[in-house]
Amino acid sequence: MKTRVIVTLKPGVLDPQGKAVHHALTGLGFGGVEDVRIGKIVELDLADGTDDATIEEMCRKLLANTVIENFRIERP
Amino acid sequence: MKTRVIVTLKPGVLDPQGKAVHHALTGLGFGGVEDVRIGKIVELDLADGTDDATIEEMCRKLLANTVIENFRIERP
Repeated sequence: MKTRVIVTLKPGVLDPQGKAVHHALTGLGFGGVEDVRIGKIVELDLADGTDDATIEEMCRKLLANTVIENFRIERP
Repeated sequence: MKTRVIVTLKPGVLDPQGKAVHHALTGLGFGGVEDVRIGKIVELDLADGTDDATIEEMCRKLLANTVIENFRIERP
C-alpha cells in the first residue's frame, strides 16, 4: 500500500533553502515567482491494512519535527 | 497561483536517506514497512497565468536533476 507523507515548514518558520531557490529562479530570468517553500515528501510502501493512526504516529515520532513542521498524509 | 513540484529519485537510484528512515522506523517497532523513498516538494507561489511550460523549464533548469530525478507538477 503506497502512502505519501508531505512534511512542510510551518508558516512563519524561516526557509533559507526556499529563499535561495527563489533568488536563483529570479536570477535565471523567471519573473513572477512570489514565494518558494521547500518541503520533504516521504513515500512509504506499507503492508496492506496499516491504519492512519499508525502512519500519524510514525510522523510524530520520526518523520516530522512537529515544533516547526506540519505533516499531511496522502493516499494516491 | 499555488503550484507544487514533486521531485523524486528515479527508480533504481540508491536512496540512503530513505534506507535510514526505513531502518529507524523498524527500530521504533513499526512493522510492515516495505520501502521508504524520500523526495522533495517545492511549493511555488506564481503569478497568475504562468503556464506549465514555464514551470517545466524551471524544473529542468534548477529544481530537479533530470539525470537521477523525476519531477511532477501538481496544481492543488
